[in-house]
Amino acid sequence: MTIDAFIREREKPVLDELKEFLRIPSISTLPDHNADCRRAAQWVADHLKGLGCRNTTLLGSETHPVVWAEGPPAPGKPTVLVYGHYDVQPPDPVDLWETPPFDPTIRAGNIYARGATDDKGQVFSIVKAFEAVSRNGSPPVNVRFLIEGQEESGGEVLTDLLRREPERVDADAVLVADMPYYAPGWPAIYTALRGICYCEISVRTLDGDLHSGLYGGVAPNAHETLVHILAQLKSPAGKIRISGLYEAVVKPTKAERDAWNRLPFSERSYLRNEVGSRALTGLKRYTPLERIWALPTLEIHGITGGFTAEGAKTVIPAVAAAKVSLRLVPKQRFKTVERQLRKRVKELAPPHAKASVDLIHGADPVLADVSARPFDFLRQAFREIEGREAVPIRSGGSIPIVPALAKRGAPVMLAGIGLPDDRLHAPNEKLAVEQFWKGVRVFGRFFELMGS
Amino acid sequence: MTIDAFIREREKPVLDELKEFLRIPSISTLPDHNADCRRAAQWVADHLKGLGCRNTTLLGSETHPVVWAEGPPAPGKPTVLVYGHYDVQPPDPVDLWETPPFDPTIRAGNIYARGATDDKGQVFSIVKAFEAVSRNGSPPVNVRFLIEGQEESGGEVLTDLLRREPERVDADAVLVADMPYYAPGWPAIYTALRGICYCEISVRTLDGDLHSGLYGGVAPNAHETLVHILAQLKSPAGKIRISGLYEAVVKPTKAERDAWNRLPFSERSYLRNEVGSRALTGLKRYTPLERIWALPTLEIHGITGGFTAEGAKTVIPAVAAAKVSLRLVPKQRFKTVERQLRKRVKELAPPHAKASVDLIHGADPVLADVSARPFDFLRQAFREIEGREAVPIRSGGSIPIVPALAKRGAPVMLAGIGLPDDRLHAPNEKLAVEQFWKGVRVFGRFFELMGS
Repeated sequence: MTIDAFIREREKPVLDELKEFLRIPSISTLPDHNADCRRAAQWVADHLKGLGCRNTTLLGSETHPVVWAEGPPAPGKPTVLVYGHYDVQPPDPVDLWETPPFDPTIRAGNIYARGATDDKGQVFSIVKAFEAVSRNGSPPVNVRFLIEGQEESGGEVLTDLLRREPERVDADAVLVADMPYYAPGWPAIYTALRGICYCEISVRTLDGDLHSGLYGGVAPNAHETLVHILAQLKSPAGKIRISGLYEAVVKPTKAERDAWNRLPFSERSYLRNEVGSRALTGLKRYTPLERIWALPTLEIHGITGGFTAEGAKTVIPAVAAAKVSLRLVPKQRFKTVERQLRKRVKELAPPHAKASVDLIHGADPVLADVSARPFDFLRQAFREIEGREAVPIRSGGSIPIVPALAKRGAPVMLAGIGLPDDRLHAPNEKLAVEQFWKGVRVFGRFFELMGS
Repeated sequence: MTIDAFIREREKPVLDELKEFLRIPSISTLPDHNADCRRAAQWVADHLKGLGCRNTTLLGSETHPVVWAEGPPAPGKPTVLVYGHYDVQPPDPVDLWETPPFDPTIRAGNIYARGATDDKGQVFSIVKAFEAVSRNGSPPVNVRFLIEGQEESGGEVLTDLLRREPERVDADAVLVADMPYYAPGWPAIYTALRGICYCEISVRTLDGDLHSGLYGGVAPNAHETLVHILAQLKSPAGKIRISGLYEAVVKPTKAERDAWNRLPFSERSYLRNEVGSRALTGLKRYTPLERIWALPTLEIHGITGGFTAEGAKTVIPAVAAAKVSLRLVPKQRFKTVERQLRKRVKELAPPHAKASVDLIHGADPVLADVSARPFDFLRQAFREIEGREAVPIRSGGSIPIVPALAKRGAPVMLAGIGLPDDRLHAPNEKLAVEQFWKGVRVFGRFFELMGS
């Protein structure tokens, strides 16, 4: 049976399976959802077992295990390792979702749910591609699945597993389907990923909170101190003011920048349809794509401490903390950046305050060599299904585990079938149903070409 | 029976009554506690009725009523209006309390509870002073009680009541016991209160939250914008950078500053025992007391928006908001300051952001004429009980209703029996039991002197 026949025959049950997967609120950063993460892992393992996989096991953790599974043997054929993750981002603010984040709903050709595109929908399209090309019981290649549950929270379990058992990533190609197209109709193969250095900056100015009536004017306010530190970390023009930070940055080649300049890009439509703001920020002498793909950035994600409930409280906060992250580009190293940030925060802290920086998680950036042979098969699959050459672009995002996946020499192929407006990490995350089926066809065809 | 005899005879039951009052979590800023506020009002009304008061009523609100009560008539004698409040600040952070905030506990001569000093313990010391001098059924003066339930949240109910029925404050003196001593053994009579302008500054940069991997570097971050605005509102040296803000500020007289300079004040002990910080902040060319009593200040109380839960989320926040307040000094006006702040925030907002300022509550500062006759009686009472002249100082705090209490010409006497380390608005708020009994004696003696 062809892949297309598989899709025609199994359309409804496959979407029902995907919904079942999406209903599990496997939020890895929130300990309250540990049991849900475990449940999602078990769901994936059971599903792969049902498709004929062997050695299906949960590895490395009771709460956030890595799912391992091996497809039926294809003697003499190459091995493809499929990487993905079953964990998802928190859904808050929940009240901005049009339908509940864990009640997947199809509207106007999209399936809405937390994890629809990041990464359950994407990983499931590969699983179904594998099913589509294995229906006579013998798949065209040896497929191995490595589906983790901490991609959104540092990936420690898989990192530890691969440190202990590096041979798990021995393969002829690693397929990482956690990426979007460049634009609808424009498939992409990624040549680089940014890294990340996610930290908490904490400030203490007082032994305890004080009343601003009694002490306002003399008692140091932790939020005020934190705000002055944060304001100094990045100029309003977008320059990160951390000494040494830009030193390790490798500029993209002229060829790379030329390719990016040929991509369709309308700042006006980008602002209105994707970003949803009045203007873009960042260093103006770089194009928006260069700012996202080839420059580090620093974002504040949230600030805690003091009084944040409804109403009013006239407190001088004793402690304040900001969650911040820096996205890193080749060849920055997150451990170096963590040190540079800590040094800068200490310099900026006034004598009345204790300031500290704690790393929450980090990942180094990745640079991929897309001249390796398996990329030719993936490009061909995209060309056949989509009728257009996949464009070589970068990603501003980070996948912490990729350096470890590449460690034994297999080329890591970063691609996927999401679209840029999928709103991953935000309310109303979605995946276009059409893109899901394209994933089944592209990755199924890729498996066939690899095995040919 | 003398006041001292009353205290000897009723010591234990009176403290039990106070504990009962403190057990009611009458937090006026949190709507979840509306029923508790009502319960506290009813408790006060019932208590005053039990002491022989007439016309005991709850006025102006179902949830946060003003308690009104009139003592037995003292024909031909002057009238003293007693103002206080039964509402309290929120107790958070609750985990920093050594004993639960609404389970009053006596340790080492102090009673610990939210509201112990602000203001339940203080107001109750006047109620018991009234009881002590009324035990034969005929008090030495006409006493009226006006005990509100929104002092910590803007006081709208009482403000509206006094707008409709201004004659409620017709009296020969208004006694406001919501103040601390200058220091242990140093009673104080207050010549001024700061006002307050409590606002929320909100910023929106995006239609919705975005993923920092996909958009970090070009999408405007609401927290970053808010941080840059807040950092511009006050210099690290403590100067508020809002155009026109200092214009209405009246400097204290030389005589006033001289009196303050004679007060015992050790910056070292103040830092260690009261403020609990490494250094003081604020404008260095003013003394710490001048900074608190005679200068406006601006504090950040908390910042909302983005991701603040446990763990990590790489979101670019679309909205961020800061709760801030300015303390005001004579003769600033909170409505003018609100306008000035709004104008400044609009100026500071970059083109990519929408910024707004919403007033949460406001109160004008107060300047008291302490040469009026009733002040002589209060000073005499302090002199007799404490053996020291009450010092004329100011307060950095605000009592929003005081301007309305003064409107019909009665001198408003701001005094009390708290101590500077009572930690009002903070965890482990307390009142020294000895100070409570001093209150009963001082205010009882004041009633006697007023009636003599």
